[in-house]
Order: sequence, then structure tokens, then C-alpha cells
Amino acid sequence: MGTSDVFANLSDQLGWQEELYKDLHRRPELGLQEHRTSERIHQELKDLGLETTSIGGTGVVAVIENGEGPTIMARADIDALPVTERTGLDYASENEGAMHACGHDMHVAALMGAVRILVQNKNAWAGTYIALFQPAEENSKGASAMIDDGLVNKVPHPEVVLGQHVMPKPSGHVFTHAGPMLSMADSVHITIHGRGSHGSMPHLSVDPVVIASSVVLKLQTIVSREVEPGEFAVVTVGSLTAGTQANVIPDRAELRLNVRTYDTDVRNRVIASIERIVRGECEAAGAQDDPEFDYYDQFPLTDNDADVTDRISRAFDAGFEAEVLQPGAPATASEDFSELPDAFGVPYCYWFFGGADQEKYDDAARNGRLQEDIPANHSPFFYPVIHPTLETGTRAQVLAALEYLGK
Amino acid sequence: MGTSDVFANLSDQLGWQEELYKDLHRRPELGLQEHRTSERIHQELKDLGLETTSIGGTGVVAVIENGEGPTIMARADIDALPVTERTGLDYASENEGAMHACGHDMHVAALMGAVRILVQNKNAWAGTYIALFQPAEENSKGASAMIDDGLVNKVPHPEVVLGQHVMPKPSGHVFTHAGPMLSMADSVHITIHGRGSHGSMPHLSVDPVVIASSVVLKLQTIVSREVEPGEFAVVTVGSLTAGTQANVIPDRAELRLNVRTYDTDVRNRVIASIERIVRGECEAAGAQDDPEFDYYDQFPLTDNDADVTDRISRAFDAGFEAEVLQPGAPATASEDFSELPDAFGVPYCYWFFGGADQEKYDDAARNGRLQEDIPANHSPFFYPVIHPTLETGTRAQVLAALEYLGK
Amino acid sequence: MGTSDVFANLSDQLGWQEELYKDLHRRPELGLQEHRTSERIHQELKDLGLETTSIGGTGVVAVIENGEGPTIMARADIDALPVTERTGLDYASENEGAMHACGHDMHVAALMGAVRILVQNKNAWAGTYIALFQPAEENSKGASAMIDDGLVNKVPHPEVVLGQHVMPKPSGHVFTHAGPMLSMADSVHITIHGRGSHGSMPHLSVDPVVIASSVVLKLQTIVSREVEPGEFAVVTVGSLTAGTQANVIPDRAELRLNVRTYDTDVRNRVIASIERIVRGECEAAGAQDDPEFDYYDQFPLTDNDADVTDRISRAFDAGFEAEVLQPGAPATASEDFSELPDAFGVPYCYWFFGGADQEKYDDAARNGRLQEDIPANHSPFFYPVIHPTLETGTRAQVLAALEYLGK
Amino acid sequence: MGTSDVFANLSDQLGWQEELYKDLHRRPELGLQEHRTSERIHQELKDLGLETTSIGGTGVVAVIENGEGPTIMARADIDALPVTERTGLDYASENEGAMHACGHDMHVAALMGAVRILVQNKNAWAGTYIALFQPAEENSKGASAMIDDGLVNKVPHPEVVLGQHVMPKPSGHVFTHAGPMLSMADSVHITIHGRGSHGSMPHLSVDPVVIASSVVLKLQTIVSREVEPGEFAVVTVGSLTAGTQANVIPDRAELRLNVRTYDTDVRNRVIASIERIVRGECEAAGAQDDPEFDYYDQFPLTDNDADVTDRISRAFDAGFEAEVLQPGAPATASEDFSELPDAFGVPYCYWFFGGADQEKYDDAARNGRLQEDIPANHSPFFYPVIHPTLETGTRAQVLAALEYLGK
Repeated sequence: MGTSDVFANLSDQLGWQEELYKDLHRRPELGLQEHRTSERIHQELKDLGLETTSIGGTGVVAVIENGEGPTIMARADIDALPVTERTGLDYASENEGAMHACGHDMHVAALMGAVRILVQNKNAWAGTYIALFQPAEENSKGASAMIDDGLVNKVPHPEVVLGQHVMPKPSGHVFTHAGPMLSMADSVHITIHGRGSHGSMPHLSVDPVVIASSVVLKLQTIVSREVEPGEFAVVTVGSLTAGTQANVIPDRAELRLNVRTYDTDVRNRVIASIERIVRGECEAAGAQDDPEFDYYDQFPLTDNDADVTDRISRAFDAGFEAEVLQPGAPATASEDFSELPDAFGVPYCYWFFGGADQEKYDDAARNGRLQEDIPANHSPFFYPVIHPTLETGTRAQVLAALEYLGK
Repeated sequence: MGTSDVFANLSDQLGWQEELYKDLHRRPELGLQEHRTSERIHQELKDLGLETTSIGGTGVVAVIENGEGPTIMARADIDALPVTERTGLDYASENEGAMHACGHDMHVAALMGAVRILVQNKNAWAGTYIALFQPAEENSKGASAMIDDGLVNKVPHPEVVLGQHVMPKPSGHVFTHAGPMLSMADSVHITIHGRGSHGSMPHLSVDPVVIASSVVLKLQTIVSREVEPGEFAVVTVGSLTAGTQANVIPDRAELRLNVRTYDTDVRNRVIASIERIVRGECEAAGAQDDPEFDYYDQFPLTDNDADVTDRISRAFDAGFEAEVLQPGAPATASEDFSELPDAFGVPYCYWFFGGADQEKYDDAARNGRLQEDIPANHSPFFYPVIHPTLETGTRAQVLAALEYLGK
Repeated sequence: MGTSDVFANLSDQLGWQEELYKDLHRRPELGLQEHRTSERIHQELKDLGLETTSIGGTGVVAVIENGEGPTIMARADIDALPVTERTGLDYASENEGAMHACGHDMHVAALMGAVRILVQNKNAWAGTYIALFQPAEENSKGASAMIDDGLVNKVPHPEVVLGQHVMPKPSGHVFTHAGPMLSMADSVHITIHGRGSHGSMPHLSVDPVVIASSVVLKLQTIVSREVEPGEFAVVTVGSLTAGTQANVIPDRAELRLNVRTYDTDVRNRVIASIERIVRGECEAAGAQDDPEFDYYDQFPLTDNDADVTDRISRAFDAGFEAEVLQPGAPATASEDFSELPDAFGVPYCYWFFGGADQEKYDDAARNGRLQEDIPANHSPFFYPVIHPTLETGTRAQVLAALEYLGK
Repeated sequence: MGTSDVFANLSDQLGWQEELYKDLHRRPELGLQEHRTSERIHQELKDLGLETTSIGGTGVVAVIENGEGPTIMARADIDALPVTERTGLDYASENEGAMHACGHDMHVAALMGAVRILVQNKNAWAGTYIALFQPAEENSKGASAMIDDGLVNKVPHPEVVLGQHVMPKPSGHVFTHAGPMLSMADSVHITIHGRGSHGSMPHLSVDPVVIASSVVLKLQTIVSREVEPGEFAVVTVGSLTAGTQANVIPDRAELRLNVRTYDTDVRNRVIASIERIVRGECEAAGAQDDPEFDYYDQFPLTDNDADVTDRISRAFDAGFEAEVLQPGAPATASEDFSELPDAFGVPYCYWFFGGADQEKYDDAARNGRLQEDIPANHSPFFYPVIHPTLETGTRAQVLAALEYLGK
């Protein structure tokens, strides 16, 4: 039985799948609070006759056993973002201040569609398929919550883990390559302690505004002088806040930095350099108290295994009309996906699938207006077109699964 | 009749004056909203048989005519600060979020006491005494509000204007000198427009955090390189805020600067240099939009007239047991007081009087703990001791008045 | 006849070739002054029965016609560096202050060996071989001097141009890949005009030391914020000089910058940003006179043609025992080599060959001491080991030639 | 006998004195090399019948004892500067590269004239007059050389020491005041050690150009933030040099700073802050080696004693037609003069006398061209007009002496 047969009734399920997608889109929930979302996922899986397990709070796992064969795991993330939707869609968010602005609702609907196809076509494959619905990707807490809750011991050991993400690229296409797909990310909240004073008496102060400003300029030297030319590294000071009034020198300044890298050695050097620079600048200014460094939102590298990615790419090439495309420049988003395969010590493949209307995308590309006209993930205007995005995401999950499990 | 006679019954009025002071302290009102304060001032003046005039909204003026003689004006400011009182006094502020943290309540009570003495001792002087109660000194809007409301045409033309301020110096003493007493002050809110981007895509941004940081460092060169060595000038960036998240490059940065100078040419050069530096840094960074400069809280120089100050100092030397003291280094606070004499085109004298307990002050001075132990104006812990501060402020106003009006 | 036959008597010529190499090494001459070097090259070529032409002053070309067939060109650069040799070799430089510290003497000896082999093995090939000896590579003036002197019209039109460079990699190996091999380079001498003053009177100055310092810090933002992360770009301020005495503020500062890029758009943006930053900083500081920008030592990109490089790589793989190696990270040196094929509008291949003793190299690599123990080009300690470097360079030129001309 | 009598024959000596002045001007000698100058001074003193002593190498002292009375010392400095004279005077420097560009020749001629008057008018005074001719003022080594050579034990103990300096102010006038006359000065040569690299490999370097630039910007904060507003302090980086080529990152940067202050506490804080900033910036940049600080050209404060200056000012007021003038803003030059009185532990007075043609000066002042038209000390165009400058300097020394010694 060829893979094409399993998709014979794909169009039949689209009505159900679209309803599921729109329902999730209307009711976005922030990380670790995905109670209703989790509930609906449990219900859908049970409707397919599957047993479900809650892992890591709002995380959900279903294990589909189908005789002898390999075990693989596919993961979808389920959380939304604290963004106020401005798409104007008739199925726009009804939860004020929350929005599926990163398309995780599409990931859920696609994986659920793949599960349904696999359940309904058990004759086409053999082995064990683990569908994993992960909470709280955006704040990097969901994968670790599931792992901390005993994931590795609660489900069979997969030999490979699969993940996908919808992106502002042409709908109908999938994109992947071996090696680094998504960068590491580290955020750090730095507090610089100076000494406050009246604005007219700077000699009694250790001015944290000046220290912070000098830090910002010196941080530029990490990428410009310390990282090898051509090596990927970003050090962004996204936020700098100090003081509230013109005539009062505050006693502290706070910076929020975001670091992006693709190489652990580079990352470690960058982090060390940030701390060295901040400490050095505090000493240069005569600050009495040490600066503080609080790290958060830390994401690992997403680094596709060569062999797995080769197999899956070939499966995609065969199963889609178009070839798998290169994702282009390394994506600068980050993911906690890879924590899952790392917990099992197994390889993985992660791919993108397009969510932008092809015609609109091509127009924008021709006019050099991609950034203006094709809203990116996290934008209040971002949304995938439902068709053919939903079919593509579903088909990709099934093709990848059958590459390992197909008869 | 000597000046000592007029003070014969000074102690008799202290009960009334202390009640007035505590009532004002309990009910502080912010600038231009001093409705209850203004009401009470009107009533006190009327109780003395005086006619009152409202000028500049909550400003109050009473003109005491007493035959042929010079005309002089004495001014007290009446507004409070947006500070939450933490003194623990039993007469502490009952208006949440407002506090007489700069001692203007003491100025009102002292001037009112002086008015009462002058009214009750008309045989000791001749001429015209104008008691002016000014709103909104803290935001520099009160003096100009009174002038804009026609002050100069609504009251007789004084030949000199007098003002005083309570300070964290030993109670019982007055302090003044000819020449600059209080600096000019200018605040400016600067908005730097960059271009925002995702934190991982700095190449699509014009990073306002970096521009603002460079501006802060370059602003240091105004005092270090552009102002003549030894000339007084302060340029403080009291507030710098940009962005809220680590991984988003914001589209703007905002700075709040405070400038202190004693010379108009220096001030003008400093202001021009600030604008030149900010514009140059925006150009250096390739910012498309011009930075914005909004000036506020601008205070003129308080520059005591030599002759007036000489006369009043001698009157103080004679009328107080102790000599008038030097205020020490130029005070770094600022005042809109001088707008009043400037509106009339007449000279003025402005003096400080101490509000700190003498013993406590001496102890702190001996232990090098003046800054820690003697709260300064604007501190939530600041308060003048009532005695002898109230007598000193009252006596000073009377002595200064009689120097011009005394028989 | 296989290529191996042409190398049959390679070892016979080694004595002559080593003598030539050592002679050139002893008598290094700086760019455009390679009179003796040029003389010797003419003589060697004439000794082989070839006609020679001087092009671009000290440049030398010999055209070897050998019947019908393709025309190709091979280039060696011939100039030395202003370095004082410290190798201690018995054939070290006898020209004080000049040294073949970049190995161009090796390039000449290798190309001359290849010419000799080709002349002596005319039965093994057919077509036209142009041996081009180029002056003044180090200051980027030699290729253009030859082109300006009519190179394109003075020699037959080649279909491909070949070049090679000895590097501090293991001797016996060649290294190349399609695409960018050597970066673009641009140097710029920037003069910032301030206003001088006595050191104690900064208010009369526009301090160029401060401007230059701010420029240096702001230049860091080009790589850290303006260039896309992961894109290769280097902006180095190699020299900053201003003033001579502590107590005199100078009237100017001079910076010498070096820019390295692999993409013309990136290069153009970097250059534009440098000028924008310097001008912006001068304006921010209130400098009256415009800064000056003088560009020099500008090198084009060396960007190997894919097809040519593929052919030559296969020829090397076949003709050497070892495979062609990847040059690793993009080399950060620059070359004017590509100006020659660009003048003809033809593709090219440029490769490296190792000059370091294999055993010493391996030891250093094992001990993490490559930088300390294997002197790099331009170092006063740099020298290729003669054997097998000379054979490798000769063999590479012959193999590449026969790939196009071989029967 | 009045002081006017002693000047009766002042005009008689002018021919001799002018010849002496021109001779010194023609033969300027740098600090500690004033051999011919010293020789001539010995001879002149001997011609007056005085015994002379060499102290501190080229220093000369003559002690004139004239019975019971106070002992005072007057000092003239004798060294020239490494400046090439461009005055066009017919008595211009004949010693290439040396020039009396600071007017010390005038100091010598004036003091010698005073000595002659005192010797010739011994009936007008009583006591002991010590004429001290000090070498090497410009590099601050001369006073200490004399002290180290035992000055305090080799001459009688004076009760006051007098010094004067010719300035670009109107000739015929003297200028002084109690308190600080000349600032302290400290120069420091700072070496910052980074790590060099090829310009294209910044990641292998610790870039000293960037460190030095950051140091320069951070040094601005000493005056702008650390020194009390209005307090005199100057920190100038007069020289910054690093590297020679665009494409080589150097291994060090060198800065030469000059510090000017009027208060020892301020000076000490500034010096400490310089070191703290440089060390902090080196640490921030990850420099391995400590920076080096070499101090030189250190001058003490010249701080006129109130009582001495009051006496001498009154003597000048009486003895000159015009009143003593205020020197205006604190002069920013520095002197090692005060080391002499400090060695004896006695008070002193130091004054300026004008050297500029009165008419030319007034014209320049009217046209706001003082800086352009009246060359200042150290300029290759600087020279005092001989008349009346020579008389003024002579008369000032005599008047000051007779204030203490006059009968």
C-alpha cells in the first residue's frame, strides 16, 4: 500500500479539522494555562479511541500501538502568546490579550489530523506512534515541564522525534535541512547598581545611567571583535530602563539582553564576555555593589540529524509535488523542541511549512515588500491561510511517520 | 520704636501659627490644585482685616497700606509635592500621595505670622507691604501663572521683592549672600526615533538603545570639554527608558535630562550642545526621523542684588543673635521666585533659613553623616522642626520688611 | 600520455628550481620595484627559448604556443614585503627591510618550474599557455598596472586564469573550493579635523581625540547591528593617532581602517556606514571642517568559478596522492589576482598549497599551538619548507594546465 | 628714604639690562642644560661684588647680607623651551630648536636689575636678600634639583619667597591675588596592553584601539560626574597613538593625559579615578596584562599666602601708578616655584607682570581677537615688549623686597 492511499480520505476530514483549528484559534491560552486547549486535545484523542495521559500539567500524550515495528514520536506545541489579535478574522481570538500569533493552533490541528489518518489506516503501517502535545513553548518551560514530570519513563522510547512549525513562507511547501535549523537563545536581565543622588549633585552619585550606556556600547564589541567573522552571533539589548525623573540620578539601571548563537562554544564565550564587560564597566565607574545577572527564556539549538533529515526530505520530495526547500538563512527564532529528543538521547528532524498565501507571497517578493506585506510570527496580523496549510502540515506529519513506520 | 518691640508679642501668636502650620502640613495640595490651602490663606488674611485678591488661580495677594513710604513685596510659595510622607509625625499628610516635602507650609505660616505682626504694629512702620502667596513653584508654573494673570497691574509696584526657603541646615539661622543663590534649571524630554525589529534581526533595525547610550556618553563631553573649567554646569540624564523585552529591538528611546547652570551664556551653549549631540548621534546611526525635544520645569537664576542683600544681611545680623551665614556652595536647587521681581523689573533678596534640629545637625556633622541623618528637601522623611524654625522664618520676614519700611 | 609522464623528470629540475627560489628569497624587492626579480624572470624564460614581454613595468609575460587548443593563463605574483626577516635561514634576505614574507618567491619558482615542464613536454599538450608574472600584489597595484598597460590586447585571450598561494598549512597538500576564497578588502585613511587648544583650555577646542574615540566605538555597531548576523564583515581600526603631548589638544586625529567582506552589497553598506558614522560624530561634536576619507589597498573578491574549480579539483585529486582539502573558514587575506580574469571576462580558479612542515604542523595542531608555532604569512619568521612545497606548487600548476590543455 | 629714591637711577641701568636680556634671548638653553646662561648669571653677580653658589647643577644663588633685618628670597627661572622661534626679532634665538618662548630671560634680567638696585642702595634697606636663579622650570625638575642639592642648608632661612612671571597681558601692569594663582598639573603616560592580530582576525585579538577609545570616553565622566559642579578640574587626553597600519590590530595603545586641579583632594580623586577607569576598561575588554601608568611633569599648586599677598599688593599699589589687577580666571599654567617656599616651610607671593604692548592689546581686546593677535607663552611668536616690561619686572621685585626689608 503506497502512502498516497492513506491520503485518499484526507479531504473528507477537512471539515472536522478546520473546525478544530478555528476553535483553538478563538480560544488561545498562554503557556502552562492551556486548560481548555488541553481538554479539547484529550477529547479529540479519546474520540479516536485512544488513551491519553497528562504529562507536565497541560501536556497531553497518546501512544498508538500497532504491532511490531519502530517507535517514533511527533510533537506539536499548543500555547498562545500575550498578543492582542488584529487580523480581523471572523474566528479571531475571543480571549482578550491572548492570540495564537505563532500558529501553534495549526500545529495541533495538523498533528491531530495525522493521528486520525494513522488510526484510520493501521494497515498501512506498523510500530508505535507517540503523539505529544506540549505546553508552554514560548517561554521555554513546556518541554522541560514534561520531562521533569517523567516523560521518558511514561512513554515508550522513540528512535526519532519529529517536529514542525508554520512560517511566513508560501503555503503548500515544506522546508528543512540537516544541521542547525533554529538558534540557541538566552535572555538575561542585568541589574547595575550605582548610587543615586539629586540630579544637580552628580559628585555624590555613581551614575548607573552612564554605566549602562557604556555597557551597551561595549557589548557591541562582542560581535564586532570577539566572535570570529562570519560566525553567527547576536547580542541585543532589547530593554534599558533607569530612573523616572530628569532631576534625580537613579540608583540602578536594568538591561534585558537577548543572545542568539548556533554554536555552544560561541554561546559560552558571548555569555562570559557579557558578564566580563558588565563587571568591568561597573568597576571602571567605581560601583560598590556587584551587578546581578538573571537568565531566562533559554532555548537550546535545534540541530537536525543528517540521516533522519535525509530520509524525511526524500519522503517529502516523494509525497509532495514540490521538492523540499531550503529554509534559507538560519532562522533566528528558537525552540525548546530539541529538549524532547535530547531527553531520550535520540536524533530528530524539525521542519517548517509555509502558511502564507502563495499568490500574495509572490507579489510581495516581486515588489520587495515581504516584510511589509507578509506578517511574521508574533505579529498581531499573523495568520496562516487555512488551505492548503492545514493539508500540508497534516500530510508532512503523516509522510514523516510512514517513512519510519510505513509497510 | 526699635524692631525688638514688634517681636514683643511674637510668642503670643505661636499657638495660632503652629496650628496653621500643622493644618497646612496635614492637607498638602499639588501645584495649581491648592484650593483648600488657598481658601485658608484667604480666610487668615481676612481675619486680620485685610482684603485679598486671587491671582493666577490659587495664588493670593494681600496689600497692606500704611501711609507714605516705600512699597515692598514678600512671597511665600504654597504647593506640595507628589511624595508619600514617611515622617511618622502626628500631623503627617492625610492626602495620600501628596506631602509638604519641601517646606512650603512653613513658608506660608512664617509669612502669615509676619503679616500679623506688621498689621498689629502699624506704628512701627510706614509704606505698603504686599504679601504674595504663590502656587505651583515645584513645576515652575506658579509665578508665571500669576504674572500672566496680570499681577503687575493688579498690585502696587514694589521696589524690592523678598523670598525665603527652609533648608536642611541648623534651625535658628539664616543664610544668604549677594549674587547667584540658586541655579537655573532646564529639563528636557528627548525622544529618539530608531526602527524596531526582532531582537535576532538587528540588521533590519536602527537600534535606539545604542543611539541613546551613545548620546549619554557624548553628553558627558559638554561639561568635560565644552564648558570652561571651573564654570558651574551640570547635565544629568535622570531617566533613560527604551523597550520592555529582551528579544525585541524597540523603535524609540526616551531620555529625561536636567541642566543646571549659573550663567545664561553657559546655559545656552549647553542646551545647544545637547541638541547638536543628539542630532549628530541620530545621523551617525542612520535614524530616519528627527529626535524630539520637549522642555519643561525651566527655572530662572536666583541672583541676589548686592545692595538689597547687603541691607538685609545687616538687618539680620542686627536682629538675630547670630550672624547671617554663607549658604556655602551655590545651592543646586532652583526656584521660579525671581520671575516675580523680574516682572516688575526690580531687585530682590532670597535667603535660606534652617529647619534642622541644631543638636541633631551638629551630631551628624561631627560624624560625617549629614546626608544620612538630616533628610533633605523632597525626601519623604524631610520636615523642619517647628521650633525655632517658625519663629526664625517669621522674624526674618519682619526684619527684612522693616529694613525698608521701618520708622 | 598520462600526466604522470610529464613529471618523470621533475626531480631532475629540482636543483635548478631550488637555486632560483633561494636567489629570489635572498633578493626580495618591494612592489613596482622588482627590477632584479623581473630581470631574472626574463632570463629564465629566455633560457627556455621563450619570448618575453614586459607589461606594467616589472610585470613579465611569456606566451607558449603549442598548436591548436585552448588558451589558458597562469599567474604568479613576484613582490616582497617591507618586513625585516628573522628566520635565520642561510638564504635569508640580504635586502635590509625587505623580505619574501608572503612566499611570492615560491610562486615564481613553482610557475617557472611548470613552464619548464610544459616546454619540455610539448607532446603532452596542445594549445596556448600564458605564464604571467605580476608585480605589486601586496599593495593591490600590480594587476591593475598590467591591465592599464594593455594586457588584454597584448596577449591571447585565455578561457580561464589560474592562481595559487602558499599558506601556513601542511606542505604537500592543496586546498580549494568553489565560491569565495579570499575576501574583498578596503583600507581607508580618515582624518578628523577638530580644533586644537592648550590642554587646560578644552572649552576653546573641538577635541579630536574624543571624536575619534567615539568613532571607534560607534564603528563597532556596523558589524554588531547593521550587518546581517552570520554575514562575514570585519571593520578594524588598525591605527589611531592624535597629538604628541599630554598638555596640548591636537587639531586632528587620524584613523586607518581595514574592511573585509565577501559580498559587494555588504561591502557597500559597510563603507557607507563608516562615512555616515564619522560624519555624524563630527557633527555631534561640533567640528567645523568635514572629515576626509582616502581609500587605498582595495582588493576585489576572489570567487572561484564552480565549473573550473570542479575540474581542477578533480585533476588535483587524480594527480596528487591526497585529496584536495577544504581551505576551512574563508581565508581573511585578500588578493588582486581576480582583476586579471575579470579584465578578460573569464572564470578562474585560485588555490592554496601548504608550506609548513607536516610533522611540525601536526605537533602544533595536537598541542593547540598552531598560532604560536606555525608562523603565518607576513610574519618575519614565515617561510615555506622548500621540500615538498616546491614540487607541490609546480605539480599543481602543471596538473591544472593539463586539465585544460592535456592531450 | 622712600622707595622712589631707589629707582632714581633705574633708567641709567636700562642699557645694561636690555643688553643682558637680548643676550639671554639669543642664547636660549633647555632645562638642566643652561650652562652658558648660568655662567653669565654668575658673572653678572660677581661684577656686583657678590659671591655666588651653584646649587642643583645650573642653579645659581647669591646672598646679599645687609645688617640686621628680615631674610627674604626672590626667584627667577632661567630655562628655555624646545620651540623654534618665529618672532622675526633681530635678537631672535640663535640656538636652533630652542627659544625663550616663556619669557624666563625677562625674569632673569628683571631679578638681576633688582639685585643691582638693592646692592647700589644698601642704605635704603636692612636684612638679607637671597637672589635665586632656578633651572628647568618647564619640566618641573629645577626646583627639586636645587632642593635635593641641599638648598635649605646652603642659604639662610627666608621668611618669605617671591616669584613672578611675564604674561600676555598689558605691559606696565602687575597682577596677583591671595589664594590659588596657578593650578596643579600632572601628566601621565598610560600604556594599555591588548593582544595584536591580523586586521581580519579580530577574534584572536584584544583590541587596544577599542579599549583606548572607551577609556577616552569614560575619562570624560570624571569631570562631568565625579568632580563637584563648579570645582576646577581638567582631564585632557592630549595624545592617543596605537598602531601604524590599517590591517594590523596593534598590541598596545598609548595615551598621554594632562590633569589640572586647584585642590589636592580633587586632584587625588581625579588621579584615582583615571587609574580606576583604565583598569576597569582593560578588565571589561579581557586584557591579560595590567596597564602601566608613568607620571611626569607634575607641578604643585601655586597658592598665594593671604597676608604676604596683601602686603605686596599694597606695596605695588603704592609703587606703581596703577593698581594691582586681578589675574582674572585662575591661570591654567603651572609652576614648580612653590616647591621652594614649601622646602623652607614659609609663605610666598607669586605675581604676573604684563608683556604685551598696551595699545596692541587694547585693540585686540576691542576686536575680540586677543587669542589671535596676542601670542601666548609657549607660542613661537611670543615675546614681551622690552619696554616697559623690563622696568615693571624690575620695579616689582624691588618693591616687594623693600616691603620686607625697606627702612
